Amino acid sequence: MYNLYYWSHIQGRGEFIRLALEAAGADYVDVVRRSEKRGGGRAAVLAILQGNDPRAPFAPPILEVDGEWISQTANILAFLGPRLGLVPKDEASRRWANQLQLVVTDFLVEAHDTHHPIAKHLYYEEQKPAARKRAKAFVELRLPKFLGYFEGVLARNAKGPSWMVGGELSYVDLSMFQVVAGLRYAFPKAMARLEPAHPNLVALSARVAKLPRVARYLKSKRRIPFNQSGIFRHYPELDR
Amino acid sequence: MYNLYYWSHIQGRGEFIRLALEAAGADYVDVVRRSEKRGGGRAAVLAILQGNDPRAPFAPPILEVDGEWISQTANILAFLGPRLGLVPKDEASRRWANQLQLVVTDFLVEAHDTHHPIAKHLYYEEQKPAARKRAKAFVELRLPKFLGYFEGVLARNAKGPSWMVGGELSYVDLSMFQVVAGLRYAFPKAMARLEPAHPNLVALSARVAKLPRVARYLKSKRRIPFNQSGIFRHYPELDR
Repeated sequence: MYNLYYWSHIQGRGEFIRLALEAAGADYVDVVRRSEKRGGGRAAVLAILQGNDPRAPFAPPILEVDGEWISQTANILAFLGPRLGLVPKDEASRRWANQLQLVVTDFLVEAHDTHHPIAKHLYYEEQKPAARKRAKAFVELRLPKFLGYFEGVLARNAKGPSWMVGGELSYVDLSMFQVVAGLRYAFPKAMARLEPAHPNLVALSARVAKLPRVARYLKSKRRIPFNQSGIFRHYPELDR
Repeated sequence: MYNLYYWSHIQGRGEFIRLALEAAGADYVDVVRRSEKRGGGRAAVLAILQGNDPRAPFAPPILEVDGEWISQTANILAFLGPRLGLVPKDEASRRWANQLQLVVTDFLVEAHDTHHPIAKHLYYEEQKPAARKRAKAFVELRLPKFLGYFEGVLARNAKGPSWMVGGELSYVDLSMFQVVAGLRYAFPKAMARLEPAHPNLVALSARVAKLPRVARYLKSKRRIPFNQSGIFRHYPELDR
């Protein structure tokens, strides 16, 4: 049994954990989405962050398992991967999966900072001129660089271009699906232009969406819709 | 024997790997700092990044060991930690170390982006107004938040406040030393103001600097000086 602690109103970084748990059919509670009466709500996260535990995490997502708190998306996935059968058994492949997940981590900061280039505590509307410039550089240079890298990983995979790591589904594939979904929401024009040059990535995204457990999850109320509070936000003026 | 591939003119993210290798007295080559004749130079990194290897990394630092390339700072340290005796043996402590290292990773992006809030490919001089605003938010809010967290980890450590993870030196301590050193170079005024409230962190930094192997390394030519090309840059107008 896993307890996931993450903000209840956004997909955010928590979604990469939710997707792994859902794809594996794991037994978990999305704690913050429960009512406060039942120990949920925002207070459940704040109690951990503001508590005095020797190993209190810096920020959510946080996975609680057997009394241990595990934080940082890639760290949680490196822990869950072997337990959920979402990473190959050999150590070199696990390092490779972790490496790719950390590229995703880097990418998410850059995607987020297109709308928040100055400060997280300010509204988008307070940093629009800088956002416009940062989004331009992102769409023209950084987005193609990251997508090109991920496409290359699939194209060069010795086990074929179906999956990112080896010949089976791993948590990295679930993350790639989420990256593509988020980009399509936030930057529909840029993605329409870039997708044809990244056929393996587009096919991977469709393949993941059709996995029975993932498909059921995406149709369920457990999947929070994209919105203007998460990592991926759709501001037409930032999309070219 | 380890081969490290990282840019030769900056400490950057490579320094977190160099410090681990040096503190453990490991046998390694800082490949790019060798002459091109001897297989070094920038070309050595570019050959990996632009090559067609199925597991080509996205970016340096890259550690080459037994024919495997391992990239992403935290991923390299998670690999080296057990081999170099720089992390406790139990899995929960290793996850905790990795978690803390990933907080450092997040922090480094924010420290870097104070001088490059708009785009990596532009000069600082081309993004000064945004840099001034981002640095203000960093110094006033983000820097105290991160330093306060790291100080709290030391203060709450069940084995005492000498080390970040358990009761012995780990790679996380080496990274904390580097973070403090970088901040003192880039933001001397802000750090002079903040240090008194973070006594355990300041003491840890001094403790690491005095480790015999680290002390020798810091005095050697192998330690590249801080400069205006790395993560930490000193622009007086960004320091308050």
